[in-house]
Amino acid sequence: METTKTALTKEQISLWFQSLQDDICQQLETEDGNAKFHQDKWERAAGGGGRTRIIADGNIIEKGGVNYSAVHGPMPENILKALNLPKNDFYATGVSIVIHPKNPMIPIIHMNVRYFEMTNGTYWFGGGIDLTPHYVIEKDAQFFHQQLKNTCDKHSEAYYPKFKKWADDYFYIKHRKETRGIGGIFFDRLSSNDGFSKKERFDFVMDVGNIFCPTYLQLFHDNKDKAYLSENKEWQFLRRGRYVEFNLVWDKGTKFGLDTDGRTESILMSLPATANWVYNFKPKAGSPEEYTLQHLKKEIDWINYTG
Amino acid sequence: METTKTALTKEQISLWFQSLQDDICQQLETEDGNAKFHQDKWERAAGGGGRTRIIADGNIIEKGGVNYSAVHGPMPENILKALNLPKNDFYATGVSIVIHPKNPMIPIIHMNVRYFEMTNGTYWFGGGIDLTPHYVIEKDAQFFHQQLKNTCDKHSEAYYPKFKKWADDYFYIKHRKETRGIGGIFFDRLSSNDGFSKKERFDFVMDVGNIFCPTYLQLFHDNKDKAYLSENKEWQFLRRGRYVEFNLVWDKGTKFGLDTDGRTESILMSLPATANWVYNFKPKAGSPEEYTLQHLKKEIDWINYTG
Repeated sequence: METTKTALTKEQISLWFQSLQDDICQQLETEDGNAKFHQDKWERAAGGGGRTRIIADGNIIEKGGVNYSAVHGPMPENILKALNLPKNDFYATGVSIVIHPKNPMIPIIHMNVRYFEMTNGTYWFGGGIDLTPHYVIEKDAQFFHQQLKNTCDKHSEAYYPKFKKWADDYFYIKHRKETRGIGGIFFDRLSSNDGFSKKERFDFVMDVGNIFCPTYLQLFHDNKDKAYLSENKEWQFLRRGRYVEFNLVWDKGTKFGLDTDGRTESILMSLPATANWVYNFKPKAGSPEEYTLQHLKKEIDWINYTG
Repeated sequence: METTKTALTKEQISLWFQSLQDDICQQLETEDGNAKFHQDKWERAAGGGGRTRIIADGNIIEKGGVNYSAVHGPMPENILKALNLPKNDFYATGVSIVIHPKNPMIPIIHMNVRYFEMTNGTYWFGGGIDLTPHYVIEKDAQFFHQQLKNTCDKHSEAYYPKFKKWADDYFYIKHRKETRGIGGIFFDRLSSNDGFSKKERFDFVMDVGNIFCPTYLQLFHDNKDKAYLSENKEWQFLRRGRYVEFNLVWDKGTKFGLDTDGRTESILMSLPATANWVYNFKPKAGSPEEYTLQHLKKEIDWINYTG
């Protein structure tokens, strides 16, 4: 894609997001070896639409979605009011992914890359990748964060520390005093500011999108043949319960979508096939489940973690 | 209980809620015939505490809770500010129930009765009972609403129509455009107003508490021996998913509790043992599942319903 000599338009960005969706779906299908994505194309009455792609009952993937959308129209009145803005149209496009694997030794992953602009000229990029292992495995956590840091460092050494902390703070289940998983990176409102051009911001966002497959597929490879017991599956269902709690209670993106009459089935593709709740469940002392709980904390430096 | 000649105190009200919890737990245990309630007594750092009682893996009940609490202390600063009030202590006591049965032909039920007062003299009662059938059965819905109407009518003919509408509006899953179930009654801020004394309000609340067992146990009796297939169980899991969505996204009580650092395990006792999500599930035309979906609407007059 040639973006250096011309202004970077919303259409170019959106097209790149479409190609990212295509690429990720293809790689996940190949890796899974069984399930295929089912696509629902949808239109938004007020402008734009999307391609929701859902996968289920695979060899490796139990349930997941890789969604692309590009919606536009007048900014909602209440948001204009809150931001003290005059009438404005918006355009929002992005890719959003959640994968719930079958084997509890493979982590849940979430990625989102997005672009937003208004007719008044304001624009920004946002996104991130974060990992939710049912069982925290130090080596995997280190690899995952190293991949993200490498991607960030290519663009700015300030990115990883800042966006890693942002993920710790964002993916926090306040009522459980637990993080959703081992974090990752989260960023928002990246614009032509802090010395970055629009092209530089987009280059970074493209790299985040491109690091998804090599990172997650490595975690597939390393863990997909691990044996597990019914008690591991039970624990996975409980951890998925916490995932549901985060997404429905605290996730601002989910809340915004449900509040503004977004496409419910596309938004809630993030929920697992099955989740369980057991009153006041406490893992056994010294168990891998207890180890996991002890590592669902903010501010763990996974790259240099020595236990 | 003698409350006519003396002022009705928060301690008297709270004691009655305790006795209600005892009575309901005993009746549910007897009816279930297998599972027993497990009690956790807890204390709140800032004042008061509660008795959380959980039941699981019974003959009839898969998971449920019957909670009593009486908490007090200084009103949170942000709430005082929002209500434009000076410093004040509060006292809040109540009983809260959710029962998830094993057999999908038995409905989920929720009841809550509560009392709130501040040291400035403000007080009110709130509460309600609502029913969430996995399968809407007309006869059951009619019986349920008739029981509530009879209870309301003893106190005021204005109660049932008003509180039935309030339940329709409250137990609404906005992002699904569905009600959580077939409604019931919901009321709040019942005080010494609209011509009612504090005692009259409490008499009504006691009657609501007392109608719980005869109503729900009748629905147990009528449905507990009905046969069901795995597809009925699958549908139950999907409906429980909707129950989770309502409670975590829209229920103001749950939100308030989680936001104000309430006891998470007591608040989230309302969640089912197992819930499922399937992307864009559509029931078969003419099926009882489709019939159910068609009846998860506001403003159905169940008492006079003729199909």
